[in-house]
Amino acid sequence: MSRDAYALGVDFGTNSVRALLVDVHTGEEVATDVHDYQRGEAGIIGDAGDAHVARQHPADYHEGLVASVRGVVEQAAAREDFSPEQVIGIGVDTTGSTPIPVDRAGTPLALAEEFEDDPNALAWLWKDHSSMEEAERITELASEHRPEYLSKCGGTYSSEWFFSKIWHCLNVAPEVFEAAHSWVELCDYITALLTGETAPEAIKRSVCAAGHKAMYCDEWGGLPDADFLAMLDPELGQLRGRLYEQAYSSDVAAGELCGEWAEKLGLPEGIPVAVGAFDAHYGAVGAGVGTGTLIKIIGTSTCDITVASKAETPAEIPGVCGIVDGSVVPGYYGIEAGQSAVGDILNWFVTYLCGDADLHEKLTAEAGGLKPGESGLLALDWNNGNRTILVDARLSGLLIGQTLHTTQAEVYRALIEATAFGALTIHNRLREYNVSTERIIACGGIAEKNPLFMQTYADVFGQSIEVSRSSQTCALGAAIFGAVVAGSKRGGYDTTEQAQAAMTGVKAERYEPDPARHAVYGELYGLYKRLHDSFGLSGHCEPLDDVMKRLLDIKHDVAG
Amino acid sequence: MSRDAYALGVDFGTNSVRALLVDVHTGEEVATDVHDYQRGEAGIIGDAGDAHVARQHPADYHEGLVASVRGVVEQAAAREDFSPEQVIGIGVDTTGSTPIPVDRAGTPLALAEEFEDDPNALAWLWKDHSSMEEAERITELASEHRPEYLSKCGGTYSSEWFFSKIWHCLNVAPEVFEAAHSWVELCDYITALLTGETAPEAIKRSVCAAGHKAMYCDEWGGLPDADFLAMLDPELGQLRGRLYEQAYSSDVAAGELCGEWAEKLGLPEGIPVAVGAFDAHYGAVGAGVGTGTLIKIIGTSTCDITVASKAETPAEIPGVCGIVDGSVVPGYYGIEAGQSAVGDILNWFVTYLCGDADLHEKLTAEAGGLKPGESGLLALDWNNGNRTILVDARLSGLLIGQTLHTTQAEVYRALIEATAFGALTIHNRLREYNVSTERIIACGGIAEKNPLFMQTYADVFGQSIEVSRSSQTCALGAAIFGAVVAGSKRGGYDTTEQAQAAMTGVKAERYEPDPARHAVYGELYGLYKRLHDSFGLSGHCEPLDDVMKRLLDIKHDVAG
Repeated sequence: MSRDAYALGVDFGTNSVRALLVDVHTGEEVATDVHDYQRGEAGIIGDAGDAHVARQHPADYHEGLVASVRGVVEQAAAREDFSPEQVIGIGVDTTGSTPIPVDRAGTPLALAEEFEDDPNALAWLWKDHSSMEEAERITELASEHRPEYLSKCGGTYSSEWFFSKIWHCLNVAPEVFEAAHSWVELCDYITALLTGETAPEAIKRSVCAAGHKAMYCDEWGGLPDADFLAMLDPELGQLRGRLYEQAYSSDVAAGELCGEWAEKLGLPEGIPVAVGAFDAHYGAVGAGVGTGTLIKIIGTSTCDITVASKAETPAEIPGVCGIVDGSVVPGYYGIEAGQSAVGDILNWFVTYLCGDADLHEKLTAEAGGLKPGESGLLALDWNNGNRTILVDARLSGLLIGQTLHTTQAEVYRALIEATAFGALTIHNRLREYNVSTERIIACGGIAEKNPLFMQTYADVFGQSIEVSRSSQTCALGAAIFGAVVAGSKRGGYDTTEQAQAAMTGVKAERYEPDPARHAVYGELYGLYKRLHDSFGLSGHCEPLDDVMKRLLDIKHDVAG
Repeated sequence: MSRDAYALGVDFGTNSVRALLVDVHTGEEVATDVHDYQRGEAGIIGDAGDAHVARQHPADYHEGLVASVRGVVEQAAAREDFSPEQVIGIGVDTTGSTPIPVDRAGTPLALAEEFEDDPNALAWLWKDHSSMEEAERITELASEHRPEYLSKCGGTYSSEWFFSKIWHCLNVAPEVFEAAHSWVELCDYITALLTGETAPEAIKRSVCAAGHKAMYCDEWGGLPDADFLAMLDPELGQLRGRLYEQAYSSDVAAGELCGEWAEKLGLPEGIPVAVGAFDAHYGAVGAGVGTGTLIKIIGTSTCDITVASKAETPAEIPGVCGIVDGSVVPGYYGIEAGQSAVGDILNWFVTYLCGDADLHEKLTAEAGGLKPGESGLLALDWNNGNRTILVDARLSGLLIGQTLHTTQAEVYRALIEATAFGALTIHNRLREYNVSTERIIACGGIAEKNPLFMQTYADVFGQSIEVSRSSQTCALGAAIFGAVVAGSKRGGYDTTEQAQAAMTGVKAERYEPDPARHAVYGELYGLYKRLHDSFGLSGHCEPLDDVMKRLLDIKHDVAG
């Protein structure tokens, strides 16, 4: 074995940046450091008059990058066997789609004096939903004129994505749009900074961002064509030439750490930096994704990620948000699905309805004492719309079966179950299209901290669930790609699979399904799916007058 | 005008007895007194293992009758112009169906030593739902063999009603059933006590109780025939002959105050006592019911009562619980409909979900600041089943439209609106069958205390709502019938209408509908009715995928 070698992963989340230094031979997480964003509310700059607005300031990214990386370097320096020269590669992941308007030099407009007070010149955070109308119009026009563009992203273009946001900026802040030479995804902006290659045309763009959020595909020559974008608005047609032609998977180096940023970070110049990607995709890599293995990143929302052989898998799966060649593991289709709210639904319930944000622990304990079906309740998990498989932000929550005795804990459990039923609906859709999910590995805050949640999922799926060994899989995924772009010659790896084999793992304990609970959940899921289809599928029609009675029957049977 | 004359009304509620002394010329409520039941929980004796059980002890009735009547007599005695001899008539109303098993003398079994610890020997309070299975079976058998029996009670026999309870007693406590010579409704039991005519065959039974709860109708010769009852159980067939042949409206005297009870109450012997009836029906009389006037008694649940000309009204209205000749105002059909939970749904929400029973005032204030449609929410008011027009206890609650921002106040308002939509569904059904509801008078706790509730109802109905002058309309109705059985010769009245004209009235202030709010509620009601039919009507089938989106559209429009 060669001398010690480390890879650095930097993960830009919604509220903070995390840096992680990993031993590439053992996967040991040697040092980690988190920097919280300082601006707005936990880094999110909103608009009191419009709950859909969510922006971020690029200065938060700069400060967070410096602070978190310096943090790990300082921690590691305390080890006698560490020196910064042993960092062989750097990977970066971020939230997305989080596009930033930039000038010719690639500098965010938000940093120019002219725009320092203009929220539209900031980074448009993934969860900004102000461009819902634009998203609908893009879906309409693409359905009519370029149906292939929607086929890779579930049939519906989202308000969270690249072109919806840029178009909305053009509509509400034409002066910002005019001033922007180009738009850069946050994950590309960070690699551009690190490598010093900030001019928009020089940036090696992420195929993960391009393919999942910007309708990029080799099949039709990259981004949507200028004629199509001009149908949205002639100005967008003209922007096409100032975006990019080619995007890359993360086994490609975006460049090498430049002198300016080497100094800021306390690292040597020349370290290879991998092309960036989104947090969920790297999280899947860090959790051990592979063919047949579905990674569930379960937190406030859930992201389901897997990879599939290009030979055996259809290139399109209805209602699945994204199927992009090389977006997760190079050489495979990266498949992304998800639920727009999971932990957020429980947070809403305790905070907004029960009026006490600290109730989670109590209600989890009480809900854990209930049997499946005992509450007589059933819910849909659509409080924040449905991402997969309906791809419809204009859906909302539903709770059915409440009596005059229904308790907080019963609703709490029903909401957990609803998210599990939503998850099962996604798994079933993948399986229908020959994507195997025979192994499930969970990661994220809920996977680590909430056994009731995880056991419910195992019982609903009828399948065991493993939990990722690392609790920072996104940053670990980034470090893995750092090791890959270093390559074996510099002490790293030549393939993603080799790096994963060395650097990832699962915990010894796993959640096993209980057959009796699975049987009850099978009945409840049948009812869930009928409500799902009735309220979610256009034109679907079936009698529902038995639903409340079936819930009572199940409750009665369970009470035994 | 003759010398002063007073009528006494005694109203047996769920938790207490109220006596009310009324000046028959002016309607002035001279004295009132309430006695709370002392046994069980606020008078209700439940079963820790079965939430459906709700019983009462006859001794509570005795004690309450004495205490409340003595209370008003003592209060009135403080007036220099009052003497007990001026009490010209007595009326009594009670909850129901609240049947009591009695021996040959008419004494409740619960008062016998043998049964003093047996809950099945107590009075079976109206809200006891332990006989759901028996109710379903009665409905099935009547549908098949005696469909006419169901035609007066909305097509479904309820677990709250006379024969369901008696049959359940036979099934779970055959020794009590065996020991019972007969069963007597609480309203008949009280008049029997007062008149001294307690032997079951001597009691003048209430047509209100008989017609609304025991399938009694002159059309088929009174109670259900013995052959039918024997189909339920041969023992019930044999009980038929020990029940009663004839029932009476309340313009008939049950008898005169007997010596024993005259002494207990501090009143002279010989005062005529009207045949009893149920609280809601007398409440309607006390609120001023008449043809074209619907009385809404709005509290924890709601009772809708009106009367209709026998010449102009069909004798059956689908889904309306009861149409009984003379059950409200003699000479007219008494029509009873209702909602199984109204205030109770709001009580459930604040107590069980928000975890704070004292939140009503705060949430009412906040909900009052919202516009119709602003919450994006819609609910069904079925947490306790649906009494009218679906007559289905096995329905449950539904809430739709919740997001991650939905507040307590928004849900609170949506639940109020749901009860208003449920009420409108009842009104519409009555109108479809030629029962006019051109005037609406509300009474009950919510009508008196909650302007937001009442204004929402006016806005949803598009109709002004008046509020009864009296806040104790049930006891007032009882007093009215006391004045009627006294007759004009003894200083009372010869007809119910004359007595009502003199003794009832409305408050000067009324709730007027706002046209703009009514228009929004028209749209919301359309969605409510679609959910109502989809989840409530057997075989009904229509696409619902637009419902969540319509709620968002309305919310958007309202936000303007």
